[in-house]
Amino acid sequence: MKPARAPRGFVYAVAEAAIKKPGRHDLGIICSEAESTAAATFTTNRVKAAPVRIDMARIRSGKGRAVVVNSGNANACTGDQGLRDAREMAALPARALGVSPSLVYVCSTGVIGTRLPMKRVREGISRLMPRLGQDSLEDVARAIMTTDSFPKVASARLRIGGRDVTLAACAKGAGMISPGMATMLCFIMTDASIEHSCLKKALGDAVDASFNRITVDGDMSTNDTVLMLANGLAENPRITLSSRHLKGFRDALQEVTASLAEMIVRDGEGATKVLEIEVSGARTQADAHRAARAIANSLLVKTALYGNDANWGRIMAALGYSGAAVREERVAIAIDALPIVEHGLSTGRDRQANLLLRRRTRLRLSVHLGMGRFRDSILTCDLSEDYVRVNAEYRT
Amino acid sequence: MKPARAPRGFVYAVAEAAIKKPGRHDLGIICSEAESTAAATFTTNRVKAAPVRIDMARIRSGKGRAVVVNSGNANACTGDQGLRDAREMAALPARALGVSPSLVYVCSTGVIGTRLPMKRVREGISRLMPRLGQDSLEDVARAIMTTDSFPKVASARLRIGGRDVTLAACAKGAGMISPGMATMLCFIMTDASIEHSCLKKALGDAVDASFNRITVDGDMSTNDTVLMLANGLAENPRITLSSRHLKGFRDALQEVTASLAEMIVRDGEGATKVLEIEVSGARTQADAHRAARAIANSLLVKTALYGNDANWGRIMAALGYSGAAVREERVAIAIDALPIVEHGLSTGRDRQANLLLRRRTRLRLSVHLGMGRFRDSILTCDLSEDYVRVNAEYRT
Repeated sequence: MKPARAPRGFVYAVAEAAIKKPGRHDLGIICSEAESTAAATFTTNRVKAAPVRIDMARIRSGKGRAVVVNSGNANACTGDQGLRDAREMAALPARALGVSPSLVYVCSTGVIGTRLPMKRVREGISRLMPRLGQDSLEDVARAIMTTDSFPKVASARLRIGGRDVTLAACAKGAGMISPGMATMLCFIMTDASIEHSCLKKALGDAVDASFNRITVDGDMSTNDTVLMLANGLAENPRITLSSRHLKGFRDALQEVTASLAEMIVRDGEGATKVLEIEVSGARTQADAHRAARAIANSLLVKTALYGNDANWGRIMAALGYSGAAVREERVAIAIDALPIVEHGLSTGRDRQANLLLRRRTRLRLSVHLGMGRFRDSILTCDLSEDYVRVNAEYRT
Repeated sequence: MKPARAPRGFVYAVAEAAIKKPGRHDLGIICSEAESTAAATFTTNRVKAAPVRIDMARIRSGKGRAVVVNSGNANACTGDQGLRDAREMAALPARALGVSPSLVYVCSTGVIGTRLPMKRVREGISRLMPRLGQDSLEDVARAIMTTDSFPKVASARLRIGGRDVTLAACAKGAGMISPGMATMLCFIMTDASIEHSCLKKALGDAVDASFNRITVDGDMSTNDTVLMLANGLAENPRITLSSRHLKGFRDALQEVTASLAEMIVRDGEGATKVLEIEVSGARTQADAHRAARAIANSLLVKTALYGNDANWGRIMAALGYSGAAVREERVAIAIDALPIVEHGLSTGRDRQANLLLRRRTRLRLSVHLGMGRFRDSILTCDLSEDYVRVNAEYRT
């Protein structure tokens, strides 16, 4: 699981602070040995967690050195005390590293509405800092898990001007996952030398094409953060907006975010199957997105997928209420290239489609609206009894 | 269960047509002995079932005599053949009654995308018609059940100008239930004498205040229809828009639709609890509705309710992504008058709230946004493993 490729100059540490309960690492830090160019995207939820509010102010500098993160408590809906706690959680590692607290980002994930147990967080950080360099990115990926069932790590390498440039990233997901915003926590490290405006644009595009196109339950989190640090230690020719190396860097970044986005959906709470929904032939881009999203968030579609039932009537119903321009008689639907609906009518191949569903755990649903030339796609998962179980018991 | 009060001049019949499978009544008819004033509301889903399309044309006359309805097959996404089948399904009873087919409405509910088994429907109707008057409204309510666990019937009586006026209605619900449109099937009969424009307005308002304010799973059906027949046999002074009796009639109608709407939510697929969500202090009416709806459709809120966990952080998150103007520090939340959030922060009474959830099966969630003077409310239910089970196995 440890990524084969590690960007130069990043070190990691994890510790146990027993934030929700003892017995696991729930505190992590990612630290660059050199000051880094930094970019980030955050939740668009109007209720934002304390650490998100602090990071949103700090990211304006375009610079960063470290990210400290905890699981087990979201530090959201915690008022002014929550802001003080988040600031202190960043200030402690900043002091140990001898850098300005404004260069340290702070992230939290877990239960909303409860104050961080700051005594245990302080003790945890004092144990964390001496371990810097002894733990791995995968250890951090494990420390930020909540209901995730596996740690999510991805990396990529490319050559720029004769130098190896590496990207590595970790993410957590599982619940409160919905498209249309930066979703969940994700940290991306690279040793690339890259201009800030360029990093910001590349990250925005990559997030839009990956994390903003997945959904587990349609619930948008208060804590979603994707943060990227580029420390330049690869000593490649600096990437700028006009650089011929930009495309390669963007591709590598998108490979990393797409791979993590897929892991998040695969590990959706209770999920047994991943469904890629491709809507084409839409009248507008917004229509393509709306149609894909309505299918992806339909409980009836998600439970049918779980039950291996190619119940396309539920897909038609979702298209009909999606808000997209739809004419029933123009709709075509296929599952993994098997046509199940043509001209809005059954092709009579439901049984074959059900067999496909039974056999495969990753499927592609292609929906053609026949109204225009726009397309969009979203990754989603099925809805099982386990989603209900996990979320009925989450706090207890 | 049989309604104590029956409007004059309406007769009912049910029969078995084995539309999905044998062993139960799945065909019903409601017939007025006199020509009735008719009004209806239909799904706003762009994919509309064949019977909906036919009824939408017929309701323009403002008149009706009968409604024929089947369960087990929605006759949706069935193309021109579906339209022909729906027309024939209405024409057969029209011939037997000796009335114009344009006065007979037709409704279907069940699986989408499969043609009606017309041979069995024809035989069923031939058995149905001789039974007119021998069956009850409750029998019709049973015949239109799909995943419903109990038949839904309601009635009301009022005095108008010295005459008794009676309303009786039946409905089906269970799944594909979402607010913002006329939801599910509901038939309302009254012997009131009432002007068409007046009936239309009263029905629209009643549907808006009841069926358009409930949600089970956020999925809007292709077949939603609420149809009302008023045959005038009560011989009351005719109700007009300027009549002083209008208010009493509207109140009685709203009592009937509100009572059926609550039954539909209580019988939501897999539901164990009903939650009335009241949002007040919103900046606009649309904001109040958006906020209530986001909470009502949040899978995380619904699973927490099922798990008896007053997890208000999930309510805050839903408010934050609802699109309504929200300032965290102004939000107050109470469950059955027990304050759990004030100024956006915990009141520390989660344990008491959890006890309330454990003890009661119908709860009121009051959310005050502190942004203005608008309010709205929505009825919803919890989400249990049984919802998943019912919908993973629906067609199989």
